[in-house]
Amino acid sequence: MPDGIKCKQMNQKYSSALLENAVNALSSLPGIGRKTALRLALYMLRRDVDYTDRFVSALASLRHDVKYCRMCHNICDDELCAICADLSRDHSVVCVVENIKEVMAIENTGQFRGVYHVLGGVISPMDGIGPGDLEIDSLVERVKEENIKEVIFALSTTMEGDMTSFFIYKKLSSLGVKVSVISRGVSIGDEIEYADEITLGRSIVNRIDFNQSK
Amino acid sequence: MPDGIKCKQMNQKYSSALLENAVNALSSLPGIGRKTALRLALYMLRRDVDYTDRFVSALASLRHDVKYCRMCHNICDDELCAICADLSRDHSVVCVVENIKEVMAIENTGQFRGVYHVLGGVISPMDGIGPGDLEIDSLVERVKEENIKEVIFALSTTMEGDMTSFFIYKKLSSLGVKVSVISRGVSIGDEIEYADEITLGRSIVNRIDFNQSK
Repeated sequence: MPDGIKCKQMNQKYSSALLENAVNALSSLPGIGRKTALRLALYMLRRDVDYTDRFVSALASLRHDVKYCRMCHNICDDELCAICADLSRDHSVVCVVENIKEVMAIENTGQFRGVYHVLGGVISPMDGIGPGDLEIDSLVERVKEENIKEVIFALSTTMEGDMTSFFIYKKLSSLGVKVSVISRGVSIGDEIEYADEITLGRSIVNRIDFNQSK
Repeated sequence: MPDGIKCKQMNQKYSSALLENAVNALSSLPGIGRKTALRLALYMLRRDVDYTDRFVSALASLRHDVKYCRMCHNICDDELCAICADLSRDHSVVCVVENIKEVMAIENTGQFRGVYHVLGGVISPMDGIGPGDLEIDSLVERVKEENIKEVIFALSTTMEGDMTSFFIYKKLSSLGVKVSVISRGVSIGDEIEYADEITLGRSIVNRIDFNQSK
């Protein structure tokens, strides 16, 4: 190879400190590298000033003015989220989820008419997240004070998710509330031969009566 | 399939209008979909308020305070960019590029000691970009007024790039300046059998004397 050719440098020089700051900010977001960040910063420069003004004010107001539902801790604009404020829903069935993304996913199925409880994560000693960092005590309070008949766990099928479910289950066990967990098994549309063996194994162990299957 | 299962809806409902605004803003960036935008918005909520404050102020100052070099139109913080202000560089050789990204790419090679001229794009009638929207007249003025010996085109090898090079070439042809274009051919490290046929064809037609090759 000709001697003048250098390897591509990772730390590119920017012609402007303002541009470099913007690239640093954008590339601090998860999943956005410095090349993408530069592309996004140059895109903003091509759009009019109003675009960036609207962009930054949307992000700033989210961060500064965001509220959390006092009941389920979902993100909302009022004291109560739309789901908790909806009297037509079944407030005696509470689905426990990690985050707002799971609320949206379950709402999109149209299959659940109960209410939610957003933990804000799962217990993960590796990341320094203990039970006290999550909305677990408030869930126990809710079960104690309200007329709740069933708590459904819909947490990730990971060691952390299972640990969190078990921790909460122990706290709820003396309160006489029914505790269930969403079913795990082969996805609808999946071919059996390609299902991973842990999923397939669990779906055989947890088989249900054919007449009950929907 | 059970009748209760609906297709996944594209227009998800957000529990907060602030969150929806932030997702709309983030997903208006090129290459960022609504799922990624939601993930980024939730990431900002997990970080402290300072993080978002620094983030939005970096973008706002870039957009409001950005300057363009009066000589080469590169993005900079002063009236002249660092490259144009560098007297050790050869100001008689001007490399014409579309955008600041190409300036950075060429600077990273360490092979060019001349100066640049940033057009701000290429002529593209489909996108409504005519010669008047680009820094073409200012390039012609530069060639007329300064002691420029060579203009090098380093534009994309697209119809628009070629059209733009040709348009500028016609404008410069009467001014007695040498006009060149960066070489196109098989990339260094590429295997000949996998090179696309247009590139390979051009690299045969534009072959150079072996003693001149570096």
